Amino acid sequence: MDTSPDSTREYAKLFAEKRDKILADYFEFLSIPTISAQAEYKESIQKGAHWVQRYLNDSGFRTEIWETSGHPTVFGEWNGAPGKPTVLFYGHYDVQPVDPVQNWSSPPFTPTVRDGKVFARGAQDNKGQIFYTLAAIRELLRSRGTLPLNVKFVIEGEEEIGSPGLGKIAAEKSKLLAADHIAVVDVETKGENTPSIVLGVRGLVAFTIEAYGPSMDLHSGTYGGLVYNPARAIAEIVASLHTDSGRVAIPGFYDRVRELSEADKKLLDLEFDSAEFERFIGVPPLGGEQDQAPLIRSWLRPTAEVNGLYGGYSGGGSKTVIPQRAGAKLTFRLVADQNPQEIAELVRSFIQKRTPKGVKLDITFHEGAGQPLRTSAESVVSKAAFQTYSELFGKPCRAVLTGGSIPVVTALAQAAKGEVVLIGQGLDSDRIHAPDENFGLNRFERGFLTICRFSELLGQSK
Amino acid sequence: MDTSPDSTREYAKLFAEKRDKILADYFEFLSIPTISAQAEYKESIQKGAHWVQRYLNDSGFRTEIWETSGHPTVFGEWNGAPGKPTVLFYGHYDVQPVDPVQNWSSPPFTPTVRDGKVFARGAQDNKGQIFYTLAAIRELLRSRGTLPLNVKFVIEGEEEIGSPGLGKIAAEKSKLLAADHIAVVDVETKGENTPSIVLGVRGLVAFTIEAYGPSMDLHSGTYGGLVYNPARAIAEIVASLHTDSGRVAIPGFYDRVRELSEADKKLLDLEFDSAEFERFIGVPPLGGEQDQAPLIRSWLRPTAEVNGLYGGYSGGGSKTVIPQRAGAKLTFRLVADQNPQEIAELVRSFIQKRTPKGVKLDITFHEGAGQPLRTSAESVVSKAAFQTYSELFGKPCRAVLTGGSIPVVTALAQAAKGEVVLIGQGLDSDRIHAPDENFGLNRFERGFLTICRFSELLGQSK
Repeated sequence: MDTSPDSTREYAKLFAEKRDKILADYFEFLSIPTISAQAEYKESIQKGAHWVQRYLNDSGFRTEIWETSGHPTVFGEWNGAPGKPTVLFYGHYDVQPVDPVQNWSSPPFTPTVRDGKVFARGAQDNKGQIFYTLAAIRELLRSRGTLPLNVKFVIEGEEEIGSPGLGKIAAEKSKLLAADHIAVVDVETKGENTPSIVLGVRGLVAFTIEAYGPSMDLHSGTYGGLVYNPARAIAEIVASLHTDSGRVAIPGFYDRVRELSEADKKLLDLEFDSAEFERFIGVPPLGGEQDQAPLIRSWLRPTAEVNGLYGGYSGGGSKTVIPQRAGAKLTFRLVADQNPQEIAELVRSFIQKRTPKGVKLDITFHEGAGQPLRTSAESVVSKAAFQTYSELFGKPCRAVLTGGSIPVVTALAQAAKGEVVLIGQGLDSDRIHAPDENFGLNRFERGFLTICRFSELLGQSK
Repeated sequence: MDTSPDSTREYAKLFAEKRDKILADYFEFLSIPTISAQAEYKESIQKGAHWVQRYLNDSGFRTEIWETSGHPTVFGEWNGAPGKPTVLFYGHYDVQPVDPVQNWSSPPFTPTVRDGKVFARGAQDNKGQIFYTLAAIRELLRSRGTLPLNVKFVIEGEEEIGSPGLGKIAAEKSKLLAADHIAVVDVETKGENTPSIVLGVRGLVAFTIEAYGPSMDLHSGTYGGLVYNPARAIAEIVASLHTDSGRVAIPGFYDRVRELSEADKKLLDLEFDSAEFERFIGVPPLGGEQDQAPLIRSWLRPTAEVNGLYGGYSGGGSKTVIPQRAGAKLTFRLVADQNPQEIAELVRSFIQKRTPKGVKLDITFHEGAGQPLRTSAESVVSKAAFQTYSELFGKPCRAVLTGGSIPVVTALAQAAKGEVVLIGQGLDSDRIHAPDENFGLNRFERGFLTICRFSELLGQSK
């Protein structure tokens, strides 16, 4: 491998020359409200997919739109480097919902620059990150007339809802997906000036549970004490998910959890600054299993989380009602070697057993369950990523995991038959999934440079 | 007391002669959308108050409009029977909201007669019931030129929102309110042909609890296992309110609860048809304390109810968020001799102790707490009500309680210094608070007759 960073000067010049156009395109991309979870954005999602396709076409890629059971995936390939390896970049053009919209300082789909940061839904996750990747490959190809290796893009529209569509069609697209290396450009670094790459994600299963029974909302005076309140049933089921010590209380839940190995203790950077965490997040890191260190809890232990509670009255003051229906949104994060289908069954059976008499319960399992993923630090693609990040940050790159999930990655890795690494320029403070999501323009540029250098190093590998 | 029902023929004749005009006025009253909970109906509320005032004036009453912190109360008095006792009739001209409005078979403020029933918001609760009272007193006074006793009306505009205004000014109006007997005309009978009067209501304390901590919504992957989820805290607090057997788990909560007395066992009609309940409500009566009979649970035992749960995501599919804030609406129904302030303190302390580390909690106590009320079956006013109902239904009148609360009644009873009874012609099936609220015209007429006979009996009492 070429270990000289001289080439980064070329990339920086490339970015500087095209900066205005790149940012204009980035902002245009951000202005399309591609919220995958809400049906009313279906047309915007289509618009987003075609925007990405056009960008790839204009860059010189052959493209396809893959229709799925849900929102489409955009596929693009440039195979102009015969004999060279192939890298597959994965990202997503869909974004999280924007509620509560009144908590945004500027409209979520009107990208606004303040203090060198772009504020918009998707500014980082994932439009920002996948777009610096698209832009880097386009500008590299335009300036040189070629690329250091063959490049594919898979940019989907359902990551924020668990990638059900792409997950289902990945296997049948395996010929097109075939790649030596897979780079998922959708993660964070340890710190703004502390490089890291991600060697594993947690898996995910998601449910909606709804308790109901009375044929109408009831007066809580007349019927309080007579009817089993569906909102009470929901609270009791949610509360039963954890023991007092913060363990998930579902029998069998931990059976396949890998114990922390000596190798992982050496490899992974488990350093955690609780004071800094509290300064940023507003609370100390006191959730999860009380006998585990913070990053172990976030990376190497499974969790149960309630993502939403609803039912009955939530306005001002008080209303004396027994709600006809109440519900909760639940997600479970999984680690190697838990199996999503098996965990889903354990959860379902646990919840069903806890449904009180006089209450009916719907358990909806959301498609797109994600396998937990651990990748090797010794693969060609991991080594290229370590080197790229070390060079561009000027510091040794660390190995980390993430508590998040990218459910489709395992399916993609199996279909493409390549080694996976997860890279990105995100930071904890980017407020992804929250109001005022933002992404520093300095990190956007560094992402661009990273992709150029990473591609070059991979192109030189055997 | 005169126990002859002959006079009821006089009342029936009175009603028959004036029927068209009485119903026309009733329908006009129903057509004013006096929704107290929603600010946009403020003008309609004023219109409603003045409609009632005008009706009382035209009937020969001296009236006052009492401005309160919220909507006005209409006061009326006729003191033309010196030496005779005074009865105070209580009711309300405000109504519940009409949502979901699309579920009404006819517009909620366009009274429509179908199958002998009037469909409209307020048709029963409480415009129907207070209006047959107003009409009976008017027609009795007009036809005879006098009344059998002195009569006062207190008709307020905030019953559906907990009577905060009247509750606050009742004490200072005690001279005007002074009465020997108080009749709250706002309840149901055991069945359409089963007479009953109500000798007690439960008390009420209401809270909003909100758990918060993280300075923003957080990604449930990255932060799941690190942060104590506020929605989990809310679910755990709500779930901790009950034991497995359905008792309220708060220490001291039952300390002042009166055990079921032999006298109550004899007095109260505790008959309950579970099958009929399930047919109407959609679920069997399996809430509350499992070792108590249904009507004991509803009437003579206190409860804790969650009236609403909120926080995080509640849309379609799944969203991987740890909500920054989550909350619950809680009400506690109280029975004699529980004290609302004391219970409020027990609840607050219980909840505070259960707030997990890493979570902050706001507990908001809502004003308008209601004392539980038990009235004597042996009072003059109760005896008059028993006799009236027995005569008019042609069956012995039963004694019941209600699980609901009319928080202002205790304040009113204290200010007026009179004995209280709760009467009415409502039925469980009138859909009060729901779409298609309705009231049978036969029961409206029977209400009119009831008020005439009841007034006459009270006028004969010493």
